[in-house]
Amino acid sequence: MIAILPEPVAARLFVPADLAAGARVALDEGQAHYLKHVLRLGPGGRVGLFNGRDGEWRAVIAAQDRRATTLAVEGQSRPQAPEPDLWLLFAPVKRAPIDFVTEKATELGASALIPVLTRRTIASRVNTDRLAAIAREAAEQCERLTVPRIAEPVRLEDLPDLLDDRWLVVCDETGGRPIAEAVRVESPKKAAAILVGPEGGFAPGELDAILKLPFASRVGLGPRVLRADTAALAALAVFQALAGDWHSARPPV
Amino acid sequence: MIAILPEPVAARLFVPADLAAGARVALDEGQAHYLKHVLRLGPGGRVGLFNGRDGEWRAVIAAQDRRATTLAVEGQSRPQAPEPDLWLLFAPVKRAPIDFVTEKATELGASALIPVLTRRTIASRVNTDRLAAIAREAAEQCERLTVPRIAEPVRLEDLPDLLDDRWLVVCDETGGRPIAEAVRVESPKKAAAILVGPEGGFAPGELDAILKLPFASRVGLGPRVLRADTAALAALAVFQALAGDWHSARPPV
Repeated sequence: MIAILPEPVAARLFVPADLAAGARVALDEGQAHYLKHVLRLGPGGRVGLFNGRDGEWRAVIAAQDRRATTLAVEGQSRPQAPEPDLWLLFAPVKRAPIDFVTEKATELGASALIPVLTRRTIASRVNTDRLAAIAREAAEQCERLTVPRIAEPVRLEDLPDLLDDRWLVVCDETGGRPIAEAVRVESPKKAAAILVGPEGGFAPGELDAILKLPFASRVGLGPRVLRADTAALAALAVFQALAGDWHSARPPV
Repeated sequence: MIAILPEPVAARLFVPADLAAGARVALDEGQAHYLKHVLRLGPGGRVGLFNGRDGEWRAVIAAQDRRATTLAVEGQSRPQAPEPDLWLLFAPVKRAPIDFVTEKATELGASALIPVLTRRTIASRVNTDRLAAIAREAAEQCERLTVPRIAEPVRLEDLPDLLDDRWLVVCDETGGRPIAEAVRVESPKKAAAILVGPEGGFAPGELDAILKLPFASRVGLGPRVLRADTAALAALAVFQALAGDWHSARPPV
């Protein structure tokens, strides 16, 4: 028996448009440039498309001129599947670590990235457009079917309203229940959020109100002092391995 | 009751010398420069010292001139403690990701970092001096009592001899047992090594001999395609959380 495999695609692109067999999708300028001048794909070139709602689709370049590139959508290659509802709340730090956290958290499957302003947070403005572009590119590369939502910054004291009854995992360098134990014992089976403080930690007393919430757990990440970006990625990985979607393997290519 | 806390130290430095009360330790040029010109510490300034063998010690700058900076060792602030025997075997990739993996793996408690040359490995030379400097600085900052060993590159086919009966966790993007399950069920209680392939994965058949070893487990890191650096850090974090030293919190400061 010979399996007929679909032709491989040269790239995966996120598009906002609805995807269905026969649909025509116009690319934005950056994507059009990428296909034509980086991948050197012309009419007939094959790409994969996803929009976060309709799964992944095979498409072919139907028209390409100086002003526009249009794709013709053919068949679906993967159905949309549920993904963990896992937010990363992080105190914005320097530019390189924020970019890095955005890329890695996208690969690790965070559903939303939300900058949180704490007393020791230096930046009060965050270039969320830049982070959204990084998240989109990481999602395209890591074969996700969604792009995480990049939220505008929120103040730490506004978190309780925002979280509703979402399980909050507070990574605190001064200690707490070991994260694997907390995830196993208090494991949510529902929405969760991981909160990581700024370099230098939270200010004294700053976490008191948050930790009194009935759905918040203070967790520790071992005996060493982790940088904020390391802590964010480590916590995401442990959560996904124990309570997220790492029980399943990659779908066969 | 008032606890008498020792004066805080301005920096933690790794030194090769033996450490004991009354010892005099000469700093190398880089560390001397750092204390004098970055931290602006003069005679009487307080630092912490560790050498990977004798725990952490309080020391004071005893002499500082143009040619040498000498520290006088006072009392021990932390005893040496056992650490997980956990190697990271990684295919060297581009410079920025290697530097990054070195810093983060040090924070996450890897005991040795060993570059592995695979068929798809681009670099065949690795600047291990640069990596050792990055590892030392990360160890100083994250309050480790050791600096991970940076090994010279080894060929994939030489791994079996190198590993002896060390448990080998092979992170393979084509799938495998979920990592949390593998660590829990096959949990070593002994030495372990995490192997992460190059960007683009291992070549077909390249892992066959390795995976036939009785002490090797092929593990998966979920449904998304992780970059090599992300996979290395995620696997280290999950291992430490489940079978390493993350059951303990940070020692009280």
